[in-house]
Amino acid sequence: MMSPRPSETGLIARFFAPIAGEGGLALKDDAALIVPRPGHDLVVTVDALVESVHFLPEDAPASIARKALGVNLSDLAGKGAEPIGFVLALALPEDWTETFLADFAHGLGEAARDYGCPLLGGDTVRANGALTLSVTALGQVPSGRMVRRGAALPGDVICVSGTIGDAALGLALRRNPAWAEALSKDERGFLADRYLHPQPRLALAPLLRDSARAAMDVSDGLAGDLAKMMAAGGTTAEVETASVPLSKAARRALAADPDLLDRLLTGGDDYEILCALPQERVGDCVKAAAALGLALTPIGRVAEGERLPVFRSGAAERRFESGSFSHF
Amino acid sequence: MMSPRPSETGLIARFFAPIAGEGGLALKDDAALIVPRPGHDLVVTVDALVESVHFLPEDAPASIARKALGVNLSDLAGKGAEPIGFVLALALPEDWTETFLADFAHGLGEAARDYGCPLLGGDTVRANGALTLSVTALGQVPSGRMVRRGAALPGDVICVSGTIGDAALGLALRRNPAWAEALSKDERGFLADRYLHPQPRLALAPLLRDSARAAMDVSDGLAGDLAKMMAAGGTTAEVETASVPLSKAARRALAADPDLLDRLLTGGDDYEILCALPQERVGDCVKAAAALGLALTPIGRVAEGERLPVFRSGAAERRFESGSFSHF
Repeated sequence: MMSPRPSETGLIARFFAPIAGEGGLALKDDAALIVPRPGHDLVVTVDALVESVHFLPEDAPASIARKALGVNLSDLAGKGAEPIGFVLALALPEDWTETFLADFAHGLGEAARDYGCPLLGGDTVRANGALTLSVTALGQVPSGRMVRRGAALPGDVICVSGTIGDAALGLALRRNPAWAEALSKDERGFLADRYLHPQPRLALAPLLRDSARAAMDVSDGLAGDLAKMMAAGGTTAEVETASVPLSKAARRALAADPDLLDRLLTGGDDYEILCALPQERVGDCVKAAAALGLALTPIGRVAEGERLPVFRSGAAERRFESGSFSHF
Repeated sequence: MMSPRPSETGLIARFFAPIAGEGGLALKDDAALIVPRPGHDLVVTVDALVESVHFLPEDAPASIARKALGVNLSDLAGKGAEPIGFVLALALPEDWTETFLADFAHGLGEAARDYGCPLLGGDTVRANGALTLSVTALGQVPSGRMVRRGAALPGDVICVSGTIGDAALGLALRRNPAWAEALSKDERGFLADRYLHPQPRLALAPLLRDSARAAMDVSDGLAGDLAKMMAAGGTTAEVETASVPLSKAARRALAADPDLLDRLLTGGDDYEILCALPQERVGDCVKAAAALGLALTPIGRVAEGERLPVFRSGAAERRFESGSFSHF
């Protein structure tokens, strides 16, 4: 027999109302209310996450919640936007437990506080299959200042924040590959955390608005997302593979298994910022990012042409088929 | 073997970009851009729809799309808001076909045009189970004018738009009940259409802003939603059951099976407007709605107290347990 379940109203009041922001009207109305800041545009993004596609069944509920919000805020960061709030659509499988939901809501509330992006509303329904959720995040930029994906110009310097490939290795670690032996426990923990807990680079948003010609977040792998960004502007790019910033853990893994390079460059879930900066802004931007505690690393240049971006390593050249990674 | 599938980028370009609105940036960027109208607040609502929970596997793809948008716009209408646009999260089961997606996108585009609510962005992922989608709709109201759920006052007149219970009968018709024999083919078609194709009462939004003390849309059944609205304001309500507006088809069904009354009053998917009007506004509002081609029918009054609303029929009184309908 199923244990008695709260109604949707009861569930919202118990788990989600306590973490709602002001515009959420305590989740007691049918919609959220947002008073836009004068002189600002709204930036809206949505991401869906599905169990066993975007996260693993054994992931902690709080981690799933944090990821759902984080991946959306990463999109806002890439557009130079600051968060206003978010709404959540949550489809719960039949065997959901109150413990799961309590942990999920608690983690969501913590992430919302950490990112300054309150819950404004939502819908909770029964799933027909596995846990599925989508977050729609709203952000704002001063009028006309959203950073676009397709505006890079030949000669611009391509930069990437943080380090690339950690999350892909963190996911691969779940299968206990041979190269894991080369890593310390801390390094394995670091990579696992990079997969579980994206760090949306919201601190870079003002810098991107002020200086970037084009930007986006890296969610589907550096190579593929760079190809998308270049295609959007009718340009291509030349990247020095050795310049792509790797964490110490990723470098250790790569040393143990050089074949990992492709995975680092094409694996998803980095949630770093990819941007094109005019040459004359690069130095200041790198310094400004460092002052925020974030690395911003030049890795190549925008070039004329419409071929796929090239990754150079000495005389060797690689082009990665875009669209090779697909959720279909 | 699976047939080759387009990448998410290809799928978006082919099926969804053609129906995108201006703020969607041709779905070629990572977020939608909305320039808020000065002097207006934003109203945001999200609804998730799951196959076999909110629609049936055999429903036409265009109907599923129209319903997904319609149920959200019904929320906006209930808040007195006019639509700005929407974003879609779509989780497709493994066996999706291009025919399905083409029909879905076509239907979505038509609904978006009909409702003046363009597609602004989305995310398409692989489902782990059945088709699951969520729509987040954005609307606007003049500053401070969103119509709230919990602001009704004792003495206000409770009105409902259109007719109640048709969609619940339309859903029940799928099981070919005995009372279906009492209906003509046209009447059965009318009820089936009321289930499949919600009609968000957007035309009533200005009237609600100008005159309603409180409002919401009826999506989970009149009795339950009235209970929610009254609870939100710390009031109760007295309804004359005979005043609840029923379509000719619903009246025919009820005559054939009087036990259907509970289903009419508690069944979901009406997507009509429930509102509380000050007594002195009722006459003008009913006339104004009629001029828009919509019935607005007084059915009872707001009263002091915190009991569940009562439905009166002569000397008989009924109170419907709220929360009796739940997706859990």
